[in-house]
Amino acid sequence: MLGVIMDAPGEIRVDERENPTIEEPTDAIIKIAATCVCGSDLWPYRGIEDVDHAPMGHEYVGTVTEVGDQASTVKVGDFVVGSFFASDNTCEICRAGYQSRCVHAEPMGAIGTQAEYARVPHADGTLVATPGQPDADLIPSLLAASDVLGTGWFGAVAAEVGPGKTAAVVGDGAVGLLAVLAAQRLGADRIIAMSRHADRQALAREFGATDIVTERGDEGVARIKELTDGLGAHSVIEAVGTQESMMQAIRSARPGGHVGYVGVSHDVELPGMELFFSEIHLHGGPAPVRRFLPELIDLIWKREIDPGKVFDLTLPLDRAAEGYRAMDERRAIKALLSV
Amino acid sequence: MLGVIMDAPGEIRVDERENPTIEEPTDAIIKIAATCVCGSDLWPYRGIEDVDHAPMGHEYVGTVTEVGDQASTVKVGDFVVGSFFASDNTCEICRAGYQSRCVHAEPMGAIGTQAEYARVPHADGTLVATPGQPDADLIPSLLAASDVLGTGWFGAVAAEVGPGKTAAVVGDGAVGLLAVLAAQRLGADRIIAMSRHADRQALAREFGATDIVTERGDEGVARIKELTDGLGAHSVIEAVGTQESMMQAIRSARPGGHVGYVGVSHDVELPGMELFFSEIHLHGGPAPVRRFLPELIDLIWKREIDPGKVFDLTLPLDRAAEGYRAMDERRAIKALLSV
Repeated sequence: MLGVIMDAPGEIRVDERENPTIEEPTDAIIKIAATCVCGSDLWPYRGIEDVDHAPMGHEYVGTVTEVGDQASTVKVGDFVVGSFFASDNTCEICRAGYQSRCVHAEPMGAIGTQAEYARVPHADGTLVATPGQPDADLIPSLLAASDVLGTGWFGAVAAEVGPGKTAAVVGDGAVGLLAVLAAQRLGADRIIAMSRHADRQALAREFGATDIVTERGDEGVARIKELTDGLGAHSVIEAVGTQESMMQAIRSARPGGHVGYVGVSHDVELPGMELFFSEIHLHGGPAPVRRFLPELIDLIWKREIDPGKVFDLTLPLDRAAEGYRAMDERRAIKALLSV
Repeated sequence: MLGVIMDAPGEIRVDERENPTIEEPTDAIIKIAATCVCGSDLWPYRGIEDVDHAPMGHEYVGTVTEVGDQASTVKVGDFVVGSFFASDNTCEICRAGYQSRCVHAEPMGAIGTQAEYARVPHADGTLVATPGQPDADLIPSLLAASDVLGTGWFGAVAAEVGPGKTAAVVGDGAVGLLAVLAAQRLGADRIIAMSRHADRQALAREFGATDIVTERGDEGVARIKELTDGLGAHSVIEAVGTQESMMQAIRSARPGGHVGYVGVSHDVELPGMELFFSEIHLHGGPAPVRRFLPELIDLIWKREIDPGKVFDLTLPLDRAAEGYRAMDERRAIKALLSV
């Protein structure tokens, strides 16, 4: 089968990879319908994380073609959505809603879903079947649920967004934009998107942003304070992962407020004394997307949300390199790879 | 009046200070009945924080002797308990339960309550009157409510301690010990106190600890994991404030678990990547003790809790220097200064 391989930073190759097979009786094999390039794929692409001939991709939707002997709820022919962490969904951590930290968690990124097929461990726990075969126009949104929507949603839940509250979102990538959508669905009174890009601002407005702040860093914080009676936002979602964005998020929240952070931290060191006196709640990490999948699939199926709009570039799998390049150069928010 | 002054690290003097007067119409003056030395007073005592001829003390109970024109709920003759931050208790931040970050917050430490009298700003918001004149044996417990009990309680609430959960407490000072008591009252199934000192272990047991862990650092974390099916505690209360204790707390919590940290952070830098993948909730800061005072006073008044047991040394105010020395040398958990 064809699959995407990153040989080294900046070097994307679409080449033959061995077809996956059932390795554990709880596995399933899926034929991937669509996959995509993640903002986190850009860390190794830009040389900020090490990479050496690695299969790429951890977002996926597709059709089950084979199941192991112990996979009982997932059936051949099901159209399924899964998260970027395979999880058994039965352990104590999963039952508490933290499937991304399942005691048997396996990162799908190590398997590489930018490919024609993929092996999915813990198939019963990991995969959620759609109510039927989806119309083609639903595929991008279902694919978004696999990571960026689920991650933005978790960010908003971690930031305790809700009615009567002002939410601010740091980061205007796909996750940040979908955190805006999540905040809108979770009932925030006011949603402040922090973005400098006209196209992303427009999509943020479409997803429910009521205010746009173009300033960053201390100036961005000052603007958020101005918009919130000097107090700061109740809920701040951080969707970048740098020192600047984390501090911007922490400083934008009011005392007692909540910061939900979902940007994968890189070279971040949080100053203890400032964090202590900020008196905020801080929660985040790799999103337990599996927790939210049934609800998100339902909302998409009923066409109540259209998170697939974050895909502003669609390419066939064999042109994956163009997708990486476009995202790296910020010409695209997110690239869908059709298989 | 007499008051405690720290001239320089390690140098405690009890000397004449000017009697306080009403400065704002919302002030009250109280005649202090008892005050005490806080673990946080040891930071400057040890030279870790700067200090220069500073009045000391921020914990207090006593009797109102004078009120400003705009103090309407507090009356002369009331026996009152207040927190280490004066707060109006009416602003949006106070109403959300974060009185220590009141928009008009004033640190009582700058006023210095290790003295015969003290001015209390925002008296109506800050002070809570007891139901009547307390019996002498209740004074230590009411004084504990002023800070260490309220702080330990906040730590346990921030760590979301509750029924069905295992709580672990890092730190066996007065705050840590009272976090054990709080965890017991909040219904934790299991409470693990981390302590190496036999006398403190005994008090932790008396306050409700079910297990004692004497190891620290990585070994302490490993012991907590052993006691919790390899997962970590649901709730961890951090009551020290060092890099080691913070990391011990974070690493002792399970994914999705809660760390409540109330030790004043000193030279702490939290590594972003580890925090991200720990997937914990982190909340803390200067405790909004005022939030809990009515409930804590009620529990003390009914003799349902006896937090005053943390005072294992009682001295008259003019011997304050001995109290500092005993706590610095860990010969005393906490020194009460009777006035």
